[in-house]
Amino acid sequence: MVQSPSVKQVRIDSGFWGVYRGLVREVVLPYQYEALNDRVEGADKSYAIHNLKAAAGLIPPEQKGPVFQDSDLGKWLEAVGYALQDKPNPQLEAWADELIGIMEKAQQPDGYLNSFYILRGLDQRFTNLIDCHELYCLGHLIEGAISYWQATGKTKVLDIMRRYADLVDRLMGPGEGQLRGYPGHEEIELALVKLYRVTGERRYLDLAEYFILERGKSPSFFIQEWEKRGRTRHFDTHDTRVPELSYFQAHEPVTGMSEAVGHAVRAVYLYSGMADIAAETGNEELRAACLRLFDNISQKQMYITGGIGQTHHGEAFTFGYDLPNDTVYAETCAAIGLVFFCRRMFNLERDAKYIDVMERALYNGVIAGMALDGRRYFYVNPLENWPEASEKNPGRNHVRPVRQPWFGCSCCPPNLARLVSGLGEYLYSYGENSIYVHLYTGSRAEFDLSCGKVTIEQSTKYPWDGAVKLTVRGAGRYTLALRVPGWCRQAALTVNGQAAEPTAVKGYILLNRDWAGQTEILLTLDMPVAVMQASPLVRADAGKVAVQRGPLVYCAEEADNGSDLAALSLPPGAGFALGKAAGLPEEAVALRVSGHRETPGDGLYYPASFEKKPAEITFVPYYLWGNRGPDKSAGGEMAVWLNRDRD
Amino acid sequence: MVQSPSVKQVRIDSGFWGVYRGLVREVVLPYQYEALNDRVEGADKSYAIHNLKAAAGLIPPEQKGPVFQDSDLGKWLEAVGYALQDKPNPQLEAWADELIGIMEKAQQPDGYLNSFYILRGLDQRFTNLIDCHELYCLGHLIEGAISYWQATGKTKVLDIMRRYADLVDRLMGPGEGQLRGYPGHEEIELALVKLYRVTGERRYLDLAEYFILERGKSPSFFIQEWEKRGRTRHFDTHDTRVPELSYFQAHEPVTGMSEAVGHAVRAVYLYSGMADIAAETGNEELRAACLRLFDNISQKQMYITGGIGQTHHGEAFTFGYDLPNDTVYAETCAAIGLVFFCRRMFNLERDAKYIDVMERALYNGVIAGMALDGRRYFYVNPLENWPEASEKNPGRNHVRPVRQPWFGCSCCPPNLARLVSGLGEYLYSYGENSIYVHLYTGSRAEFDLSCGKVTIEQSTKYPWDGAVKLTVRGAGRYTLALRVPGWCRQAALTVNGQAAEPTAVKGYILLNRDWAGQTEILLTLDMPVAVMQASPLVRADAGKVAVQRGPLVYCAEEADNGSDLAALSLPPGAGFALGKAAGLPEEAVALRVSGHRETPGDGLYYPASFEKKPAEITFVPYYLWGNRGPDKSAGGEMAVWLNRDRD
Repeated sequence: MVQSPSVKQVRIDSGFWGVYRGLVREVVLPYQYEALNDRVEGADKSYAIHNLKAAAGLIPPEQKGPVFQDSDLGKWLEAVGYALQDKPNPQLEAWADELIGIMEKAQQPDGYLNSFYILRGLDQRFTNLIDCHELYCLGHLIEGAISYWQATGKTKVLDIMRRYADLVDRLMGPGEGQLRGYPGHEEIELALVKLYRVTGERRYLDLAEYFILERGKSPSFFIQEWEKRGRTRHFDTHDTRVPELSYFQAHEPVTGMSEAVGHAVRAVYLYSGMADIAAETGNEELRAACLRLFDNISQKQMYITGGIGQTHHGEAFTFGYDLPNDTVYAETCAAIGLVFFCRRMFNLERDAKYIDVMERALYNGVIAGMALDGRRYFYVNPLENWPEASEKNPGRNHVRPVRQPWFGCSCCPPNLARLVSGLGEYLYSYGENSIYVHLYTGSRAEFDLSCGKVTIEQSTKYPWDGAVKLTVRGAGRYTLALRVPGWCRQAALTVNGQAAEPTAVKGYILLNRDWAGQTEILLTLDMPVAVMQASPLVRADAGKVAVQRGPLVYCAEEADNGSDLAALSLPPGAGFALGKAAGLPEEAVALRVSGHRETPGDGLYYPASFEKKPAEITFVPYYLWGNRGPDKSAGGEMAVWLNRDRD
Repeated sequence: MVQSPSVKQVRIDSGFWGVYRGLVREVVLPYQYEALNDRVEGADKSYAIHNLKAAAGLIPPEQKGPVFQDSDLGKWLEAVGYALQDKPNPQLEAWADELIGIMEKAQQPDGYLNSFYILRGLDQRFTNLIDCHELYCLGHLIEGAISYWQATGKTKVLDIMRRYADLVDRLMGPGEGQLRGYPGHEEIELALVKLYRVTGERRYLDLAEYFILERGKSPSFFIQEWEKRGRTRHFDTHDTRVPELSYFQAHEPVTGMSEAVGHAVRAVYLYSGMADIAAETGNEELRAACLRLFDNISQKQMYITGGIGQTHHGEAFTFGYDLPNDTVYAETCAAIGLVFFCRRMFNLERDAKYIDVMERALYNGVIAGMALDGRRYFYVNPLENWPEASEKNPGRNHVRPVRQPWFGCSCCPPNLARLVSGLGEYLYSYGENSIYVHLYTGSRAEFDLSCGKVTIEQSTKYPWDGAVKLTVRGAGRYTLALRVPGWCRQAALTVNGQAAEPTAVKGYILLNRDWAGQTEILLTLDMPVAVMQASPLVRADAGKVAVQRGPLVYCAEEADNGSDLAALSLPPGAGFALGKAAGLPEEAVALRVSGHRETPGDGLYYPASFEKKPAEITFVPYYLWGNRGPDKSAGGEMAVWLNRDRD
């Protein structure tokens, strides 16, 4: 069994992710605090802090916006906590303390703390678990509290949230007089496992386990609750239909699940919780279900960007090999949830296939969600952007062609902030005598192994270059496991200047030796441009190719290639030239290749001739798309999959 | 100026369309009368006759089903009339008389005849023209009445409908005290022009012209009506938004229109009416708008099957080159409306390009709507059928993978019946001294030209074979114009055994001569298999090919090719063999070709190899798809567009 390090253990302060973490600390978190306070002009209103203040009696008691706005505060606080674990930031800390002060005032005598029900009627609390996100909000606030407490040592917010968690623990469960419910939007399970880990209080783990294992049992709690409520729903008061349980992953007990279904974010949060419980309790049935669900997602229901969720109807999974690039959902939060799931699965299984998917999601589907300036966000991350279709085809209206300053339902932006801010947890896993290096990025990490303290310093231009220098300090016998990413066909390794065998087992080169003093390791991952295809069972991509280099999936943008990207085609065996793309960061590698552009013939349909002329095609990293143009958010076409040429 | 012949003038009694017309007369119309009477087990209920009987006081006054059910009775009656113009059918006539008897009883003293408002409150009539289809239903009933009167000489139903038309003529129009409205669903315009033509009463033409030219003027009648009604809508009583005028083609005056927008059936009915008024009144602005709208549809918004309407949201057009094959709508009624529009445009312009589109729609998008047994129907005609997606991807739920016995909103089945039953009108156009032959099918036609009577007998296996024998009788100097379809690259012609010049002008070989006695013409249209492509601006089809032979578009079905059709690919220059397909009509030509099937690699995404093995691919005519399987309606995959091979 291995575990993930804390953010305190792993300082990411340079390189690719160092830049991102700096952006989050310096720009994103202040910007988001403004947004949460409804002070960003032209942006959708959050009402998150408004509602909390109203619940605290600081302003008139009016609830605004969706039911789940408290959760954004939890995510923001969690991100702030991770940022403060690196180094002090008085401004962020002052804002966080201000927020915590309001939370304290809003908390009810029995510990309850949810602005929606405090403002709309406490008598209704816990009567609509399926829709009203109470436990989801609680989960996020717990995670925020833990992070902030770990960063600052201030216990106030942790105490607040424990009081609320304790209330839920008293009220819910299988015991007599308890409400035998579970959350409509999973998340609290992850928070409770964390709370157990930092407090050592077993009842938090038990409650998480209860929520997981109770879920989907017959007769359905959600149906019973709905009957009791008079068959009403929160989001559509005219809807009198029986709730669709699969949307909530509550259609069957979790141990029987094999296929990822329903709301994609809910799903991967649940699966992450299942992996946590499997790790903590050794539940083999849960573990087996996790293995099946991961394989189902990664082998049948995941975009090449690591995006998940194929339809905006319910922001949901559909079924295997149905991966439309145009009507896609691929919510940023869902890719983030997949990252959560992958890390937990690695710690359970110690197989690089989980980190391969995690890396794919991180570098593509996740960070595409935020503009380079940190102030605009995608909710849906399409693999094909056609602005006219977003405007004129109602089935594609949900795909915004440019990033937005905020959303009425703005789950993604603070989720991205907390993931990037807390990314240290994802670079490594470690056990008593082993350290697994998952991600390569400028960083300094510290581990207490049974043989003593080990530090690892990474220096690399990854993902732009495949050379990684690791400086290892710490004596003793332990295994250092270096990941050779799935995309890498050839790796080279030197240890203190001596060539070493780069053979990987389950994706890791295992250096098991007696370490002494300082060891310099140079890992070189061959990083050619790869022209990728999808399984022919993926209809949307049949006959098409995508370009990838290292972990980065590339795309063609109108900014470089003109419009009508579907007319472009890429010949087999094309040679790519590495270069820069105007208007993108200096270090970003663009790719250029000689391809073709088909010439429209006469009319709409005609005998096949596929007349074409040579065209240079420029590819830029997918995560950077939509960052150029007059106002730095200009839309324009984008495509990940292009046609391949016949010749 | 040329005109279309009546159904009486053109008897289609053999060949491809003879079989279809026989099916409609013998099977479809009796079946549909059962359906309209709610007597088909397992089918959605119509309530059309129920409602009319209730309005007539024959059963308790309860209105059921949608607001527009009267229209289905008009369509059915029109189809019956066309059938009876060929030869007597006492059963059909008895049913029609029964229906007319109920109509007579339901008609109100002032002429009003709409079952919905008679049952739901006459005080509300004409208060919701935008939604409630009163004028649409009236239009269909007028068309039915004319057809039945022409067939039988019985004036009762024509009198009934004229009384109602006269009421509307009194109530609506630009005059003082009149309601300055127009229909929410266009159709009555076509009916009024017909009524003018058969009665000679100019006021019917004037009313049609008023409806056309008033449409879309500012301030909007529909908005004013909506305000007056208290801002309520019929179909969604919770909807308080301002009506979207473009859905109704009421966003601008029709003479300014250039782009087909909104509900596709409504649109092409309107454009047909515009062409009628342009023909009758010489309005050049209307004509110019028709030319623009036809070009917009046929050059930018039409499927290769002649289907139109790219989205199920509003059953509507989207925009140019947006032609998704999967989320497609392509309602049967819309293809039928396009046929209407094309015929009128030809008569206005005498250019075969209109008939090329008409033929494309007829042989593909229209008749695909009905099963070979005449008892099952498609509403949506997809170009790609993936049954699992129809079930599991909500964005594709609207695409039914098998034909249905009836629909709650069952506009398409009786529309198909009336078009096929009245197809005689579409085979020819004629003027004083000219006859244009548009469609080739076994038939006998009679024309009164200024020089006297001319008859034409056609004998052909078209569309299975390109040889057409025409026997022309009738002396005098006139022009016989033989269409060379747009798909035909080479035609041969003999006149009384002598080779003649097959040069076509605007798509017609013009035989202008002094005719005497009997002339035997043999037209041979070269009909090779054509591998077609779409303009590269059509993203959904980029890199793909479709197969066409003569006017028939082909498709690959799971029944012949197994599942996962997207894995199939067609090499360039492939040679096709003509053959038969098991389970399809004896005369139907299937096509076989050596292609490839791609072999799935390891995982979902991998370096492009496109490994494949040889595979024989069978294509069957698109209109025949979904006719095989255990219960003759078995679903299964279908694809019109396949990938082309690289080599």
